[in-house]
Amino acid sequence: MPGQIEDKYGLLSTLAKRRGFFWSSFEIYGGVGGFLDLGPLGLELKNLIVETWRETLLRPHGFVEISTPIITPRRLLVASGHVENFKDPMIECTNCRRRFRADQLVKEKTGIETEGKSLEELDSLIKQKGVKCPECGGILGSPQYFVTMFKTSIGPYGEDVAYGRPEAAQGIFVDFRRVFEVMREHFPLGIGQVGTVLRNEISPRQGPIRLREFTIMDFELFYNPQQPDCPFLSDVANDNLPIVTEETRRAGKEEVTKIPAGEAVKRGLVKAPWAGYFMCIALRLLKKLGINVASVRFFEKLAGERAHYSLQTFDLEVLLDRLGWVEVAGIAYRGDYDLRKHMEATGVDMSVFQAYEKPVEKTVKMVRVRHDRLRDKFGQESGKVAKVLAGQDLLALVSGKGPVKAGGYEIPMDCFEVKETRTRETGSRFVPHVIEPSFGVERLVYAAMEYALRMKEDRVVLSLPFDLAPFQASVYPLMNRDGLEEKAGLIYKLLLSNGIRTDYDEAGSIGRRYARADEAGVPFGVTVDYDTLKDDTVTLRDRDSWKQIRVPISQLAATIKQADEKGFGKF
Amino acid sequence: MPGQIEDKYGLLSTLAKRRGFFWSSFEIYGGVGGFLDLGPLGLELKNLIVETWRETLLRPHGFVEISTPIITPRRLLVASGHVENFKDPMIECTNCRRRFRADQLVKEKTGIETEGKSLEELDSLIKQKGVKCPECGGILGSPQYFVTMFKTSIGPYGEDVAYGRPEAAQGIFVDFRRVFEVMREHFPLGIGQVGTVLRNEISPRQGPIRLREFTIMDFELFYNPQQPDCPFLSDVANDNLPIVTEETRRAGKEEVTKIPAGEAVKRGLVKAPWAGYFMCIALRLLKKLGINVASVRFFEKLAGERAHYSLQTFDLEVLLDRLGWVEVAGIAYRGDYDLRKHMEATGVDMSVFQAYEKPVEKTVKMVRVRHDRLRDKFGQESGKVAKVLAGQDLLALVSGKGPVKAGGYEIPMDCFEVKETRTRETGSRFVPHVIEPSFGVERLVYAAMEYALRMKEDRVVLSLPFDLAPFQASVYPLMNRDGLEEKAGLIYKLLLSNGIRTDYDEAGSIGRRYARADEAGVPFGVTVDYDTLKDDTVTLRDRDSWKQIRVPISQLAATIKQADEKGFGKF
Repeated sequence: MPGQIEDKYGLLSTLAKRRGFFWSSFEIYGGVGGFLDLGPLGLELKNLIVETWRETLLRPHGFVEISTPIITPRRLLVASGHVENFKDPMIECTNCRRRFRADQLVKEKTGIETEGKSLEELDSLIKQKGVKCPECGGILGSPQYFVTMFKTSIGPYGEDVAYGRPEAAQGIFVDFRRVFEVMREHFPLGIGQVGTVLRNEISPRQGPIRLREFTIMDFELFYNPQQPDCPFLSDVANDNLPIVTEETRRAGKEEVTKIPAGEAVKRGLVKAPWAGYFMCIALRLLKKLGINVASVRFFEKLAGERAHYSLQTFDLEVLLDRLGWVEVAGIAYRGDYDLRKHMEATGVDMSVFQAYEKPVEKTVKMVRVRHDRLRDKFGQESGKVAKVLAGQDLLALVSGKGPVKAGGYEIPMDCFEVKETRTRETGSRFVPHVIEPSFGVERLVYAAMEYALRMKEDRVVLSLPFDLAPFQASVYPLMNRDGLEEKAGLIYKLLLSNGIRTDYDEAGSIGRRYARADEAGVPFGVTVDYDTLKDDTVTLRDRDSWKQIRVPISQLAATIKQADEKGFGKF
Repeated sequence: MPGQIEDKYGLLSTLAKRRGFFWSSFEIYGGVGGFLDLGPLGLELKNLIVETWRETLLRPHGFVEISTPIITPRRLLVASGHVENFKDPMIECTNCRRRFRADQLVKEKTGIETEGKSLEELDSLIKQKGVKCPECGGILGSPQYFVTMFKTSIGPYGEDVAYGRPEAAQGIFVDFRRVFEVMREHFPLGIGQVGTVLRNEISPRQGPIRLREFTIMDFELFYNPQQPDCPFLSDVANDNLPIVTEETRRAGKEEVTKIPAGEAVKRGLVKAPWAGYFMCIALRLLKKLGINVASVRFFEKLAGERAHYSLQTFDLEVLLDRLGWVEVAGIAYRGDYDLRKHMEATGVDMSVFQAYEKPVEKTVKMVRVRHDRLRDKFGQESGKVAKVLAGQDLLALVSGKGPVKAGGYEIPMDCFEVKETRTRETGSRFVPHVIEPSFGVERLVYAAMEYALRMKEDRVVLSLPFDLAPFQASVYPLMNRDGLEEKAGLIYKLLLSNGIRTDYDEAGSIGRRYARADEAGVPFGVTVDYDTLKDDTVTLRDRDSWKQIRVPISQLAATIKQADEKGFGKF
């Protein structure tokens, strides 16, 4: 079939290198697995994706962004549970001494889902199924855990152990109180952080997908668990969420349930309304990146597969060539786990007092024992009876009709006095609950590029959305003489001053330059030729259709912006 | 004196915390020296500074930006010389076992400049001057070197040692060939990188200034050492550079020589023309950040103080309250040191062939020994004479008049034949030389804030330049009722859509809101009151003069932009 691409992964890897999107780090040193360099175009694409995240998730809601260190003291990550839980099962070949991730190895060799399996379960699977070393065929040892954080120490003593942060979220939790105060105690409060995280993977493969160092866009929404509703949910309640539910998965299936977000929350499939909202926001973000939302699903994690802090997690997965379903984001309901852990570790109060709009008046019943009556009735025994009653829920005791029975005594109702009092509560104090949508930026870069990849005739075209293209236009002087290059230079500056990200390319034949721009994802080409010098018009070429039209320079910027909005076919 | 601030450092630290610019990391865990958190306003300010750097240094010159990992394999940093040279002298108290940076301690206690001093020199200074432990007064041990990089290891074996990068530059050097190809072999080539660097300081102090983790803006300009001229230098040749020259410093002085950039290059004070150009660019960048260029100097490093790779280095220093002269940038002439080291370590050719515009015809003299004549003259000895001549610069030997004297022989001129041949060189091959302007971003954030700090009456005003203000305007509904808040919401959106970074603040009295905005550096306040509902005008308040004018909503955005350009006093 024409236009079909057999190996998108391979094609994209070479294109990415050739055009300067990305390549493996430390190439001249023979490379080290799990590290990626971004070239000029890849970095711009990445920055545009981060900016799109800010425009989609932060700004419309008044949420803020902060920045905290990568190096993190051990005691903080002990409190957060990472030192205990952030580990993978590792296995060593008894023959060649190579080390592998045990769960991945077993899954690959047996097809059995191994996420969340214990070391013992993995060990017995390996023996039962006869899994051998994939490199030398040797016998594998017993799996053991390996902490997948990069370890180091701070300062000159060596005892002050620290790790590279495995998520940017902890910096947000630790700063919650301070940001809450800075933000004039607005609530709910959303805090994001974009930054490098480090995960010391045992055997990273899959090029740009499984990285030891990558950029995360973490975001934590803090809300009052007594008021869990999300005021924005109604705006997206009809957006369809494609979910592989926990129930479906427990039945051994992977079918997608398509369900409107509002409905998913109402039926309890998605436990927190804010989670439902952010699932919709995540889909909208993916759409803006040009990713086909029909190839996307929310894969609910089973209890054993979830991170240690999570009450419910959906992995947002995108279907990729060769790699299959790849997680590009996770929506986790972290409850009050993290704030509570840091409270316990530091003694710093992380709870929040939130005033009600109006104070709430409540009637409270109070029950008092009438010791005078008790003495009348029980005489010398009355002390013992009083002891029996002490520490009991008196309100429950007197709620029945007959005399109260307690400790073998039968106590008449007139020994109790029930009083009603009115109280005013001005607000409530609580440890906030947290919903976290978290995105892996390099994976989004890769997914956006793969979904933009097309073949047209025998050429590769990277059809990135206009707003996401590192260069949105490129200017080409037909020749480097006769004043063409000067005119082209002026047009280049004109487009830049109109806010269009513009490249300038004068090297090689026009055909070669067009082909190069198609690969680099440049939506529009502007060719300056000898007619331009006569009538101030240029040729405007569309990357996707290869159509060309003639446009006066005075209308060029507007035409490019319009062409993007209306589609080039309109001209 | 009114308006004078006694302790800017102290004032700024509390303001920064209160308004959410920055604060010490891991506060609730008791803090760890050398780490800084950026709050919402500080992060925005930082991002704007990075953007200003791109606008000033990268885009106008067609330079590019890339991104490479923080974690760096040891072998790369061995090659670059960092494992050998990136260290500080450390000293331990024999009594309390606390550790200090020996050179800083000696400098503080004796006033003697210690940068670049050897361990022996420091040791004898300590003994001679009787420097004691600053904490307990105990006797100090002998200084030893401490590698100030964070050490870790990659992968599950523990043997693959790596460090957190101490500079972003190495990623650029290692990628030079690839980016050179991606950029269609354009030359000179400029490559920048903004990113986190890690330096495991022995005893960091000075809050946001001496950090163990910070953001660097590194930039490497690669050029042909045979064509060292910078084509942009003439644009800035008359910009004055305030330099404390090596010569001045060797005379024990710190006087500033003010000299135009072109002149400084011509006189050889600045060795490389590109370095002179970037010194001007650096000053222009500081100006855009609102830093008073009269309080700035280029402090040339002496040979012993320079980094191991540098042929010439100027620290760009800014005078700060309490901290004195603080380095915010460095301009280093790195020669071909780094590329050559990586070539040697990897065997990968880093040299570049650059075609001349026209092939160059050259006449080359070649000298041949006439062995027949040698035999005639020296007989059996001729073999020995030939040996003496082999490997000598024959052209130099025959350039004189008389007979050639070599190895005790006197050889007549007719034993040599001089031939002239014409060659065509189409270009030249070379290992590029490098000029590096490198900026510390957090220090720029701090310096920009300190230079923006003013007292007006008894209030603190942060007079950040309009383009640098995290929020450029703030909208205030006078009351939260009667439709004022709705109107204010519309105006808020109107300003945002006009590209003005806008805040919305409805909490507390108008006076308190103004004061808060002054501290946060918001240049303009927009107050929505009951007249607004009648006649669609608002009060526009200027942060610096506290003047207020009445403006129709329809002209609000334009007035704000104009007010910034013209100065508010014009209205």
